[in-house]
Amino acid sequence: MDFQKILNDIYAATKDSSEKGTVATYIPELAKVSGDKLGMFLLDAEQNVYSVGDTSERFSIQSISKVIALAQAFDLVGNTLWKRVDVEPSGNPFNFLSLLEQENGIPRNPLINAGALVISDILISNLKDPKADFLSYVRGLADDPSIDYDEAVARSESETGFRNRATANLLKSFGNIENDVEEVLDFYFHQCSVAMSCEQLAKTFYVFCNRGKCTKQSEYLTLSQVKRINAIMLTCGFYDEAGEFAFEVGLPGKSGVGGGIIAVLPDHFSVAVWAPGLNEKGNSLLGMQMLEQFTTQTNLSIF
Amino acid sequence: MDFQKILNDIYAATKDSSEKGTVATYIPELAKVSGDKLGMFLLDAEQNVYSVGDTSERFSIQSISKVIALAQAFDLVGNTLWKRVDVEPSGNPFNFLSLLEQENGIPRNPLINAGALVISDILISNLKDPKADFLSYVRGLADDPSIDYDEAVARSESETGFRNRATANLLKSFGNIENDVEEVLDFYFHQCSVAMSCEQLAKTFYVFCNRGKCTKQSEYLTLSQVKRINAIMLTCGFYDEAGEFAFEVGLPGKSGVGGGIIAVLPDHFSVAVWAPGLNEKGNSLLGMQMLEQFTTQTNLSIF
Amino acid sequence: MDFQKILNDIYAATKDSSEKGTVATYIPELAKVSGDKLGMFLLDAEQNVYSVGDTSERFSIQSISKVIALAQAFDLVGNTLWKRVDVEPSGNPFNFLSLLEQENGIPRNPLINAGALVISDILISNLKDPKADFLSYVRGLADDPSIDYDEAVARSESETGFRNRATANLLKSFGNIENDVEEVLDFYFHQCSVAMSCEQLAKTFYVFCNRGKCTKQSEYLTLSQVKRINAIMLTCGFYDEAGEFAFEVGLPGKSGVGGGIIAVLPDHFSVAVWAPGLNEKGNSLLGMQMLEQFTTQTNLSIF
Amino acid sequence: MDFQKILNDIYAATKDSSEKGTVATYIPELAKVSGDKLGMFLLDAEQNVYSVGDTSERFSIQSISKVIALAQAFDLVGNTLWKRVDVEPSGNPFNFLSLLEQENGIPRNPLINAGALVISDILISNLKDPKADFLSYVRGLADDPSIDYDEAVARSESETGFRNRATANLLKSFGNIENDVEEVLDFYFHQCSVAMSCEQLAKTFYVFCNRGKCTKQSEYLTLSQVKRINAIMLTCGFYDEAGEFAFEVGLPGKSGVGGGIIAVLPDHFSVAVWAPGLNEKGNSLLGMQMLEQFTTQTNLSIF
Repeated sequence: MDFQKILNDIYAATKDSSEKGTVATYIPELAKVSGDKLGMFLLDAEQNVYSVGDTSERFSIQSISKVIALAQAFDLVGNTLWKRVDVEPSGNPFNFLSLLEQENGIPRNPLINAGALVISDILISNLKDPKADFLSYVRGLADDPSIDYDEAVARSESETGFRNRATANLLKSFGNIENDVEEVLDFYFHQCSVAMSCEQLAKTFYVFCNRGKCTKQSEYLTLSQVKRINAIMLTCGFYDEAGEFAFEVGLPGKSGVGGGIIAVLPDHFSVAVWAPGLNEKGNSLLGMQMLEQFTTQTNLSIF
Repeated sequence: MDFQKILNDIYAATKDSSEKGTVATYIPELAKVSGDKLGMFLLDAEQNVYSVGDTSERFSIQSISKVIALAQAFDLVGNTLWKRVDVEPSGNPFNFLSLLEQENGIPRNPLINAGALVISDILISNLKDPKADFLSYVRGLADDPSIDYDEAVARSESETGFRNRATANLLKSFGNIENDVEEVLDFYFHQCSVAMSCEQLAKTFYVFCNRGKCTKQSEYLTLSQVKRINAIMLTCGFYDEAGEFAFEVGLPGKSGVGGGIIAVLPDHFSVAVWAPGLNEKGNSLLGMQMLEQFTTQTNLSIF
Repeated sequence: MDFQKILNDIYAATKDSSEKGTVATYIPELAKVSGDKLGMFLLDAEQNVYSVGDTSERFSIQSISKVIALAQAFDLVGNTLWKRVDVEPSGNPFNFLSLLEQENGIPRNPLINAGALVISDILISNLKDPKADFLSYVRGLADDPSIDYDEAVARSESETGFRNRATANLLKSFGNIENDVEEVLDFYFHQCSVAMSCEQLAKTFYVFCNRGKCTKQSEYLTLSQVKRINAIMLTCGFYDEAGEFAFEVGLPGKSGVGGGIIAVLPDHFSVAVWAPGLNEKGNSLLGMQMLEQFTTQTNLSIF
Repeated sequence: MDFQKILNDIYAATKDSSEKGTVATYIPELAKVSGDKLGMFLLDAEQNVYSVGDTSERFSIQSISKVIALAQAFDLVGNTLWKRVDVEPSGNPFNFLSLLEQENGIPRNPLINAGALVISDILISNLKDPKADFLSYVRGLADDPSIDYDEAVARSESETGFRNRATANLLKSFGNIENDVEEVLDFYFHQCSVAMSCEQLAKTFYVFCNRGKCTKQSEYLTLSQVKRINAIMLTCGFYDEAGEFAFEVGLPGKSGVGGGIIAVLPDHFSVAVWAPGLNEKGNSLLGMQMLEQFTTQTNLSIF
């Protein structure tokens, strides 16, 4: 299959779209990004690369970082993780705090903010130097020591992150945060601030397409762990639009409000797209469209 | 009507009750109070006093302070208050954060925690020295300069108040807190920590029985304001048990987790009870019973 | 106090209001009523009458009937009633079925539809000929044998009452309906269809102002029962606007989507208003305003 | 891979399990089934069969029928279907009616009861003789004319189906049911009552493993439609345990309260299990375990 031609076609068909969605503004620092950016990068199982558009410019990966943090925590504490966070889709975005109350402070899954805060807490309890060790983990996966936090984004989110602060305090009230709330939030905001390009993202997530081994073939996760994280991405990776993504695209994946989306087809490829404009559910509008076109044209999906 | 005899009878019938409820433990400092305390103090419209039991020992008034803060804020900003907080009963305690989300950060009423936090924010924006000025207001109402904050209780609540911290941050995320979240919480915890005896409480709330004038006959509120606060106490003063209290007792009132309850019959009396053991809804178990017996025996209620 | 002059003034000030609300259309039969109707009728404790506007034309009392059914059921089964329905305000109208689910099929109070369906079920289980016996009860209270069901309204509501049918079946699934669901619904729709004028309404509700005795001084309810029903009207009588009505008007009362409102001040008066246009909460827009003006001008309220 | 040996091993390891879950009793007719039944039947892509235990005895497929009805409706009306039902996981089982209210009568997905009732309504509007035509569709898929409704089960469910009746009426109140509510319910209860053996189930669902073609290679669905239904099964097929099933098993599937579970691996196999005892989420306890062991031992899953 000529992936490069398919990427070129999709890019051409998308580039001049009149509807580009809305760049996220709730984190002031993110609002500075141009809504015209557009890129798609595919790394196949044999590590051949296919690329089109803005694939080497870095952007804030935001919630995509939740999958990496989950992987590191899963590796560190194994299945005891699931005592503190569930694996069910979250359903309704408008009552997430209510769900957390009803379910006694056990977040529905590790890819919503509440769950990711618990994962951050677990990492703090199990890492010597959480911020440095998380960054090392990401750099190792991507085989790229230049990946770093964006301190301006982290600070911007901390200053306006009242809802995350509310969530973290609610979790603490249920005893599901062990460490200091502000320390957990600071670590969480830093994870979200990690800046990567489409190329770096696709390489980082190669581990989920390659049975737990990174591009250098070092083993980061067992096959069983990879399958489970892929299952969680599929059912929970797109907020209230997880079902839609499974339905339209059919790949495990994760989006971030920076406009990035990563998706993988196990044993076949990992693919990253970037388009900063979001749809009303908070996922990249053109990014969703490009991935949908890709699986439609190639007939490659897990279903 | 021989109020003193009625109080004596009620006290005798209640004193040796085997079911006394459970003293609140979630604020460690409150857990130190003996569950055997029991007092009832009535101040009639002519300022005759009737008293039985532990009516001069001070306890933490906790949520009862919400009514006093509401009165001060109502006096300061008038009906503009109601743009930031509603006057409806809150219904279900298990989804209060969800309600706040659905209703865009406008608390259901000023006597639930979320509403009281907004009131605290309004007071901070309108008082020169919030903590000192609120204390002066309370002392003026009670005509008693000895009333004070209990710093140990305020600190104890601040250290464990993760749920209030969650609520305040959620309000801030909706733009319904103007000031710094921690400053609002500190002021709120101080209000709750005010220590009063049944006697002081009954005197403080005389203003709501006496058409807006305190025991010294200074006017604190207009008649219309008093009626409105009395209406809010009746419909919202007892958490998820407001209907039950209206049904069984039939007086505007307010309870606190310190075990105090204040109630008033406009133009007739204000009455304070104290019994630290709480029922499962968080209201003083024996306090509720004493007030129920009082209105049953005297047939004095607003209905 | 010159009640007649006050009524005349209020009527004059309201009659030409440009904002009249919206006549209910979800029951097709009700949509036929003119939005220009306006009436107010007051019956004082001594049975003096004061009247202005359309006070002898009959309209569908709709939910006002819930109070009468509650009174009859309370008289028949006493306090065992409260095992099957609670007395708390319902809070949020948008999750009422959810609340019913969470609270295991126990309606929050007898004045919301779910509660009234349970009351209807109780009446069916305790009356020989429910429809005839309920009508006799109403006629007795009003001392008026001409009061009757409006079969066209009852049929109209039955044909479109899918939400009430949903509620009744949900109650049945929890075991809180003993009789056949369709029989309960048919009885309930008939109660709602009862047609009365403001004059008849004020006379019917005189029992709640007169300590349980009707205009002919026959005893229908004990004083304790009257006080409790008045408490429920105050806290639960206006859907999601109960707090607002207590706050603005300060009287126990009940509204119906036919545009009627009844309110009482114990030992002083019962007062009925009618204006078919509803506000967004489903209560008579001008009716609310007239009652608010009445208690403001007279300073007569329970607070 | 020796599927027969794997099935034998799983059967041996499961047969004498002391924890078998609880046979559903809410439909009286289902309560008659023995909790000791246990069967597993696998049909691979080449139509080789592997079988162990009670695989030819028929049981009530219950909610598994929802997938077949969805397939028939999807074939009949295409993507217009998604105007009336969404494709998102439902999240919380305890507020499903609330969700339906908040989301204006659009069920979250076609595999929850509310969604299946809408699908039934669509089939009634588009089939000449709904009950006969649905049965023909099932028989065609399974290549087995002996498959039939179980009238006793359908009647039993109709007599006790108050919650489904509540749901259907709520949908009707939102205008999302076109036909008569009782006709929709009767059709829905009949679909649920279809009796099949594990062997018949596996053959019926072969269409979802074989790109839309049944065992006789007739085309029932397009590849795109099959992929979409598989995606819905994965994200929504197991009530509140969909994430758990994706996490532990990793296959698109559907369970029924009769104790059956069907799952497919596209291009590889369809597999049916039957064990009547349910876990607390309403899915077959031993059935879940057998499928989990199967994908663990074979490493065959979509992830």
